[in-house]
Amino acid sequence: MRLWTVTEPWGPEGLTLDETADPMPGRGEVRVRLRAASLNYRDLLIVRGRHVGGALKHGAPIIPIGDGCGVIDMVGEGVEQHQIGDRVIPLMVPNWRSGPVSPAKMAGALGLHSPGLARELAVFPERHLIKAPSYLSDSEAACLACAALTAWSALFEGPGLRPGDVAVIQGTGSVSLAVLQFAKAAGLRTIVTSSSDDKLASVLALGANHGINYRTVPNWAGAVRDLTDGVGADFVLDMGAVGSLSESLRAIRMEGQIAVVGILEGGSAIDPAQFLASAARIRGITVGSAEMFDAMVRALTHHEIHPVVGTVLPWTEAPAAFEMLSDGNQFGKIVLEF
Amino acid sequence: MRLWTVTEPWGPEGLTLDETADPMPGRGEVRVRLRAASLNYRDLLIVRGRHVGGALKHGAPIIPIGDGCGVIDMVGEGVEQHQIGDRVIPLMVPNWRSGPVSPAKMAGALGLHSPGLARELAVFPERHLIKAPSYLSDSEAACLACAALTAWSALFEGPGLRPGDVAVIQGTGSVSLAVLQFAKAAGLRTIVTSSSDDKLASVLALGANHGINYRTVPNWAGAVRDLTDGVGADFVLDMGAVGSLSESLRAIRMEGQIAVVGILEGGSAIDPAQFLASAARIRGITVGSAEMFDAMVRALTHHEIHPVVGTVLPWTEAPAAFEMLSDGNQFGKIVLEF
Amino acid sequence: MRLWTVTEPWGPEGLTLDETADPMPGRGEVRVRLRAASLNYRDLLIVRGRHVGGALKHGAPIIPIGDGCGVIDMVGEGVEQHQIGDRVIPLMVPNWRSGPVSPAKMAGALGLHSPGLARELAVFPERHLIKAPSYLSDSEAACLACAALTAWSALFEGPGLRPGDVAVIQGTGSVSLAVLQFAKAAGLRTIVTSSSDDKLASVLALGANHGINYRTVPNWAGAVRDLTDGVGADFVLDMGAVGSLSESLRAIRMEGQIAVVGILEGGSAIDPAQFLASAARIRGITVGSAEMFDAMVRALTHHEIHPVVGTVLPWTEAPAAFEMLSDGNQFGKIVLEF
Amino acid sequence: MRLWTVTEPWGPEGLTLDETADPMPGRGEVRVRLRAASLNYRDLLIVRGRHVGGALKHGAPIIPIGDGCGVIDMVGEGVEQHQIGDRVIPLMVPNWRSGPVSPAKMAGALGLHSPGLARELAVFPERHLIKAPSYLSDSEAACLACAALTAWSALFEGPGLRPGDVAVIQGTGSVSLAVLQFAKAAGLRTIVTSSSDDKLASVLALGANHGINYRTVPNWAGAVRDLTDGVGADFVLDMGAVGSLSESLRAIRMEGQIAVVGILEGGSAIDPAQFLASAARIRGITVGSAEMFDAMVRALTHHEIHPVVGTVLPWTEAPAAFEMLSDGNQFGKIVLEF
Repeated sequence: MRLWTVTEPWGPEGLTLDETADPMPGRGEVRVRLRAASLNYRDLLIVRGRHVGGALKHGAPIIPIGDGCGVIDMVGEGVEQHQIGDRVIPLMVPNWRSGPVSPAKMAGALGLHSPGLARELAVFPERHLIKAPSYLSDSEAACLACAALTAWSALFEGPGLRPGDVAVIQGTGSVSLAVLQFAKAAGLRTIVTSSSDDKLASVLALGANHGINYRTVPNWAGAVRDLTDGVGADFVLDMGAVGSLSESLRAIRMEGQIAVVGILEGGSAIDPAQFLASAARIRGITVGSAEMFDAMVRALTHHEIHPVVGTVLPWTEAPAAFEMLSDGNQFGKIVLEF
Repeated sequence: MRLWTVTEPWGPEGLTLDETADPMPGRGEVRVRLRAASLNYRDLLIVRGRHVGGALKHGAPIIPIGDGCGVIDMVGEGVEQHQIGDRVIPLMVPNWRSGPVSPAKMAGALGLHSPGLARELAVFPERHLIKAPSYLSDSEAACLACAALTAWSALFEGPGLRPGDVAVIQGTGSVSLAVLQFAKAAGLRTIVTSSSDDKLASVLALGANHGINYRTVPNWAGAVRDLTDGVGADFVLDMGAVGSLSESLRAIRMEGQIAVVGILEGGSAIDPAQFLASAARIRGITVGSAEMFDAMVRALTHHEIHPVVGTVLPWTEAPAAFEMLSDGNQFGKIVLEF
Repeated sequence: MRLWTVTEPWGPEGLTLDETADPMPGRGEVRVRLRAASLNYRDLLIVRGRHVGGALKHGAPIIPIGDGCGVIDMVGEGVEQHQIGDRVIPLMVPNWRSGPVSPAKMAGALGLHSPGLARELAVFPERHLIKAPSYLSDSEAACLACAALTAWSALFEGPGLRPGDVAVIQGTGSVSLAVLQFAKAAGLRTIVTSSSDDKLASVLALGANHGINYRTVPNWAGAVRDLTDGVGADFVLDMGAVGSLSESLRAIRMEGQIAVVGILEGGSAIDPAQFLASAARIRGITVGSAEMFDAMVRALTHHEIHPVVGTVLPWTEAPAAFEMLSDGNQFGKIVLEF
Repeated sequence: MRLWTVTEPWGPEGLTLDETADPMPGRGEVRVRLRAASLNYRDLLIVRGRHVGGALKHGAPIIPIGDGCGVIDMVGEGVEQHQIGDRVIPLMVPNWRSGPVSPAKMAGALGLHSPGLARELAVFPERHLIKAPSYLSDSEAACLACAALTAWSALFEGPGLRPGDVAVIQGTGSVSLAVLQFAKAAGLRTIVTSSSDDKLASVLALGANHGINYRTVPNWAGAVRDLTDGVGADFVLDMGAVGSLSESLRAIRMEGQIAVVGILEGGSAIDPAQFLASAARIRGITVGSAEMFDAMVRALTHHEIHPVVGTVLPWTEAPAAFEMLSDGNQFGKIVLEF
């Protein structure tokens, strides 16, 4: 089988298409033939040799990408939950089954600590796989394990939100679009910020209630207050851009919650006085557990939500796909199909 | 002005239409000319001389009804939030402003500890009033302070529910219909039980996902499990009928929540073994606070939810309206218009 | 090695001391030589052929007891967390690692679905074991996996309690005593009920703040209200005796929490009116997860809490021990030592 | 009566001792003769012409200090809860009765939006007063309404902490000492940081489990990890000093909570990558509600906790007291006695 690897010198241009022997499933394992994989900003960071915890170790070649979908084509002994032909999604963080996260549960992340999905065949313990909802295409099903699950965790694993609550969503990246879709399903009132009127038109078409162009309205927090009778938002999805947290604190109501998801580089200063004045609750979000995934699949299926796919490329064009992600002009996911 | 009162011998037939001097607002108070009032089962109990805490005291004449809507026609000194012409809803439990409930907060309930709304004019401290959402008719706005707020409290003041979660709603009374509407707004999957196929057809038309006739399917918990891959429901609205709690415990998933709202008389036995096997969380629900009301109004308005009004009668026909409620064949609220 | 088994006809007198080959650990497994095991009421029910879910299946012989402690004397390949000589406690419900409980997580319970600890040697996957705190004796360490963990779950896995909150603890069984110890560690004010003045003297010596003899004061809820300025308790541990839940509802403050732990047979009726008047939150409790166990060990160790051991017998006298538990006159745990 | 006021030019040296007519209680009001008042950093900021929301308005003279205790010496008509001779504590934020905070609830803060306690007599609506626990001296009772309530809110109004959980407390100011006392009452394991070995000795004497001198151990987060088997703390009280939040994020376990209380000036940068790696929950804390105060009094009383009073001065020496607070060398509260 063929696979993409990357090592020093890091970067999309360092991706190499290799060939290796087909893997075989052991006891309790299944083999998945990949059908689609989608790119997340986290994968781009890894390909560049970095991740949340800092620089990657020297010389460790990585098979990138944590988000995908495939079909089981071989089953090891003792497998009980799955059979040949099942379409499945590998958990990106397979050891986080339930409850709060911990370093041990974060270990083994696909495309970082363990081989990712940029390969034709992959073997997994059967409990690392979730059945893909049947109403989704392969490309759509390949968008759930990272961005959608992060969005789910950001919205629904904090203090409960109720219909009519106001959610501000920064930007139109893949986590932001997933938060928009889930917020709409939960009956929230949604406000999306973007620097592009075209993207704002797209999110309004997706069901956002309001759009704010933060280039023409840099004080977007003021606009949020105008839309909420001066009260502020109940929830802000913060993508961690420079200065964004400070503006989020101006946009949030007292005791409102801010979910920080972004892993953009550079620091964001909090003015303690402003923080205290808002009495905000800020949570750092890191994907989600297998149980959250199950709950998310129920919601997706009940509402027949389709992840927004922007561009589909053959998987052999992974380097071009990463360059495209790096440009940042995408709307919707970049998906590689096998 | 005219008003209805009731005392011993209790019962709808004991309701008397009296006349008294028009009340005048004092400092910080406003006078409301009633436009509509709706009946709740709690009002029927009170008219019969009973309430949740037991029998009413002898001889205390009561102006019944806690749920209504009117227009301010006179304003006392120092009133700041309201003006003549505002359409408002009196809080049924005006001393419960925020936080968890307490006996002190429950004191002063309209139509029980303090005069109710079965009268042409009523004076209130201004903070006892909520502005009625403008998109609602008078009759609809008269359905929020009791049944809708109880429904809101049942669904959203416990552990957070997420879109795709399964809510079972017992019956088609006014609390049940309000829970259905809110559950739909929150993206939940809904299952309604009823003894009437006609009523089930009506709730399906309102957006319920499934209906179960508990007369033809007495083991409705089994039907709930069939609809949820054996898992059970995440939430059950329990109306406190004889035997209902036991069936709710069979219908709920482990650690699911049961909100008990009904004040039907007679006891409901819990089998401790069954209770432990479900590890359920059961909450007794008692209307809600002013802050919950504000949040509810935001949700109602965002989703343009219209309470289900079944029958509208002139307010002078209050005894007939109570008889109608007593019969229990209604679908939708019984409203008195002034 | 020797082991106790029981099958039809059920009952302590049916316990048989058998002999079988010594088990050997496989890959990822360790072998434990038992040092002590303690009896819980749940084990007595099982020995009698019953459990929470109803009667046990015919003919399935059971090795009883879920609560114990031993020392690792053999280690399989690939074991990473443990080594020979470690003193360990097997999780009674080993598949409940984290998060909310589910039927799948409850499966494999020791002494019920899988062989229990009434045997000299037992093999476990290494993750089924928790290191025993070193400050405890073998007998004490054998009291944590069932009663203490249930107590922890009852007190700390519901809405947070704060120092000065009032906890009512029904009875002086092993769960009750563990709740008392944890409540004291958490700075709660504690009230214990019992039918025995001697046992009340013992719990006062253990640090309970108040004792109520429910034989001389059958309306103990009234006594609780007297002790709390009429407010009621913030928490009640309910052991599921006939009528106890009704009295708990009279003792609890509005929105207070009742944790039901008991698996006594017979039903307990809830008067819905009384339930609504209390607006109580009732939770059914079923042991706890591995993560709760870790947290409990931290608390035990920080406070150097010693489980209350009442009687120690040689493990070969298991039938007599079960008869003793059946009598119900014990104060403190009945422990079998190997 | 005499009173202290301050206006431009701001600063302790601008405090003026004035004289005015004795106030008289109106309907529903009581008059309090002050016995003691304590200084908080917030009062110092106000005296300097600043507060959390920015600079104070020009020219508005302020009667400072929000924290005190006195005895009722006159009672208006219709007062029901209090009588002459009662020793009481005025709520510093009297409109925050219950539930989450809001700008409306924060309005009317003593010593900021409404006259403070640096005066011999003060009139309050009776619901603005809490009965002082009888076991406390006047000086001690004057330390509850600001620092102690903030500490209570920081520890107990977030996700529930359990005995054995690890709380890191930055510094030895009055909020920090109150958090230490409450954490001990709740059975937490406590680690205090300070730049002074003397102060560390004092907190160890008060019951802290560990002290870290952050001057000799600037990487105190590493020391916290060493003390917690590498896991990190469950809770950090962050005083908002420059750089402290970044170190708190290094000290906290994944999903642990950081309560930010400090209102020191200057900004504190969060590195988003570090924040995401910790998945921390950060809350801004602003005093607390009347209901929290009631709960706190129960805890204080049950544990007979005595606030730490450092220095007592006659109230006529208020300027000297503010200078002393400004120096920052105090251990324990600075109290003015009348």
